[in-house]
Amino acid sequence: MTPGRFIALEGGEGAGKSTQARLLADALRARGLEVVTTREPGGTPGAEAIRALLLHGEGEGWNPRAEALLFAAARSDHVEKLIRPALTRGAWIVCDRFLDSSRAYQGGGGGLSDEDIRELHRIGSTGLLPDLTILLEVSPIVAAERVSRRDPEGTDRIGSRDAAYHARVAAAFVRYADEEPGRFVRINGDGRLEETQARVFEAIGRLLPDVP
Amino acid sequence: MTPGRFIALEGGEGAGKSTQARLLADALRARGLEVVTTREPGGTPGAEAIRALLLHGEGEGWNPRAEALLFAAARSDHVEKLIRPALTRGAWIVCDRFLDSSRAYQGGGGGLSDEDIRELHRIGSTGLLPDLTILLEVSPIVAAERVSRRDPEGTDRIGSRDAAYHARVAAAFVRYADEEPGRFVRINGDGRLEETQARVFEAIGRLLPDVP
Repeated sequence: MTPGRFIALEGGEGAGKSTQARLLADALRARGLEVVTTREPGGTPGAEAIRALLLHGEGEGWNPRAEALLFAAARSDHVEKLIRPALTRGAWIVCDRFLDSSRAYQGGGGGLSDEDIRELHRIGSTGLLPDLTILLEVSPIVAAERVSRRDPEGTDRIGSRDAAYHARVAAAFVRYADEEPGRFVRINGDGRLEETQARVFEAIGRLLPDVP
Repeated sequence: MTPGRFIALEGGEGAGKSTQARLLADALRARGLEVVTTREPGGTPGAEAIRALLLHGEGEGWNPRAEALLFAAARSDHVEKLIRPALTRGAWIVCDRFLDSSRAYQGGGGGLSDEDIRELHRIGSTGLLPDLTILLEVSPIVAAERVSRRDPEGTDRIGSRDAAYHARVAAAFVRYADEEPGRFVRINGDGRLEETQARVFEAIGRLLPDVP
């Protein structure tokens, strides 16, 4: 049996991650592969319950350290109950956000050290990393337009943070991609979705088993 | 202003922690001190929401690493929003469970390393420790009798784990107390509550400011 592959899509709000995840999953399924699409925070009932606390919970919001711990807890549940079992049986995982979002948002945006965020991931999920991480990059204007169409009232606690926060997040993603070129592919997502889709599929080509 | 003091009560289920916490708080208030009584997991709206996920959430339950991350997240919120502000203004904190419960339950009981649990506490709460930790020790028979009176149907996900788990937890508490005799006092809680109460108050005597 071919072992499964783990692909994560990363990027800021409005980068097109969930759309591209869906298109990529369809393309992989058309090749006869078993594909599991999932997202973070979430992906399992427990992790979705944590997601609700993180994004829409009552009260004044979480401090950055509590936030990072909650993301790591949700990821631990997600990895243990969904991702590892799927990879073990040979399925492909296409995941909308993973560890690098925690690094960019709680680290780059929120001020935690990258070492601490990776440490939480080591403790929670034995440090599992995707085989390939696709960083979708869009200009701030394109992103803002997509976000305001999707969430006009700014109800998402993290997505609705200010422009300076999102600029730190975007810069952090680029830094991680440039530090680990073997695990990341940077793809511009400003254009038409078919163009972006083609670039994404080209990028994952190296993971595909040879098709006779 | 006299700085605040932080007292934690620890021990297994049915050890009498919440009763002794209440009696201790009353005795300190009778001396004119401001006392904040609180508990873990919980103590703030955010941490209580995490408590609900931990103890009564849907699904198959959490793996020990996710569980430890959730406890650390709840503690981070609790320390940041309630405990530190109270200590800063000079109040006394009497807390039913704190870090050592995570060490005993997720470490001693659940198999995580003590280093990892302390690391989560360092990241989440900069490693804050109580000034004094009172370990209430009761025999398994007394504990079981008290627990079955309080929760006859075993609805508490952690409290209702098996006897071997609770024996590992109890042994772990004793080990931590013996390793840090300056921070811990071991008190037998098998007898009448007035006797235990007197021992607890004697133990915290060294923290009391001299009363003229």
